[in-house]
Amino acid sequence: MKKPLILVTNDDGIYAPGIYSLKKALEGAGDLYVVAPLVEKSAVGHAITLSDPLRVTEIERDNDFFGYAVNGTPADCVKLGCKCILPRKPDLVISGINQGPNTATNVIYSGTVSAAAEAAIMGIPAIAVSIASFTRQEFSFAARFSRKLAGMVLERGLPERTVLNVNVPAVPEEEIEEIVITRQGKGRYEEAFDKRIDPNNRVYYWLTGKRMILDNGNDVDDLVVMQNKVSITPIQYDLTNYSFLEELKKWNIKMD
Amino acid sequence: MKKPLILVTNDDGIYAPGIYSLKKALEGAGDLYVVAPLVEKSAVGHAITLSDPLRVTEIERDNDFFGYAVNGTPADCVKLGCKCILPRKPDLVISGINQGPNTATNVIYSGTVSAAAEAAIMGIPAIAVSIASFTRQEFSFAARFSRKLAGMVLERGLPERTVLNVNVPAVPEEEIEEIVITRQGKGRYEEAFDKRIDPNNRVYYWLTGKRMILDNGNDVDDLVVMQNKVSITPIQYDLTNYSFLEELKKWNIKMD
Repeated sequence: MKKPLILVTNDDGIYAPGIYSLKKALEGAGDLYVVAPLVEKSAVGHAITLSDPLRVTEIERDNDFFGYAVNGTPADCVKLGCKCILPRKPDLVISGINQGPNTATNVIYSGTVSAAAEAAIMGIPAIAVSIASFTRQEFSFAARFSRKLAGMVLERGLPERTVLNVNVPAVPEEEIEEIVITRQGKGRYEEAFDKRIDPNNRVYYWLTGKRMILDNGNDVDDLVVMQNKVSITPIQYDLTNYSFLEELKKWNIKMD
Repeated sequence: MKKPLILVTNDDGIYAPGIYSLKKALEGAGDLYVVAPLVEKSAVGHAITLSDPLRVTEIERDNDFFGYAVNGTPADCVKLGCKCILPRKPDLVISGINQGPNTATNVIYSGTVSAAAEAAIMGIPAIAVSIASFTRQEFSFAARFSRKLAGMVLERGLPERTVLNVNVPAVPEEEIEEIVITRQGKGRYEEAFDKRIDPNNRVYYWLTGKRMILDNGNDVDDLVVMQNKVSITPIQYDLTNYSFLEELKKWNIKMD
């Protein structure tokens, strides 16, 4: 069998610890290319860069990690990587390991997930991996599990335009209870803004907020992670609200 | 009945012609607040600004258009508008009128749609409106239709977390044939990058590409607009691939 070609990316930037651990864990699983943002691009959603030129810089870390840094978003990295850097369309795109959970409503703001989504739209199986802590830098279980899941996806494939969104709890490995296949929750942040005055007497605002749990059940991504379990949600990109389509037709909307 | 409170936003920026036409058409329909990006924010996806402070500038155009400009994304405008600028949670958020179609895969890159999505997530009925031309600046039908649809939505409401994504063909009003309730298509761009050398001998890339039609049928957003019809797609933000959930459980993924 031909060696699989794997594109590794993230949204925390090419110098983040999570992508280093992920790349190391994948060594031997295929031909690996790292194409990642030059700087952190968190909460960029599914942004692409249309109005600025993209540049690629070759980066080496610790003499054993080579990658291509792009001055753009995670989705840019996948597009540019597949078209201009890799020798052919990859067999798998894996994005992460993100520092901070990408569950519930956060999925739609996530640069990590958007990179995987971009791959899925291009017809490439894709996985997004996050750990549920912004500070704890212990990626070894998440990295090893990513490699295992990558192998399964390379073997079995994924349905059209589907991403596996993986979230690993931020606890020691021996406390992780199990793997649960989940749905995306509705939990979101109740926003607040911290209003401040700068030294020049101008008002500015910081976005802040409190996390709200809006689901119950044993199959919801954010709740599962809080129970020290690994969550895997299959996500897709047809946003149509099919259950409301027929009802909306009955509105009988006319032009005038 | 209390006058409805309406937040008007967009992604082309507060100085774009589309938001001016939209605001004008909505006058009399309720108490209107314009909160929009200070500069153009196209293709930003569902980005939010976490790492920079947000600032608000009061803007007046032509002595008859007053609004609040935010140095952030469309989603930022909705969050900040609802929490810090409007006197209460609005009854409707309407985003547009965007110059360029937001159909098929483009929906997930769209700042216009992301503003409406942000509102829907906050529990506010929301509409996104685009015209299918990047150059033609004729918004009068789209603006009038937006007002009509806004009235219907204010009266009937929308299901939880649902946005109406409206796309108007860029043809004279008399050539528009009808209104069609649609689903989101799979059409996407086949990406290409234009590789160039800058005056300092450095390589850079422009994202470019060719639009691909990947559907057929009379109920697909991008195809309907190409047939000179108005497309209205109800979209929602649970990305779970439910049809693959059970299959994925059978993979029986273990921790080691």
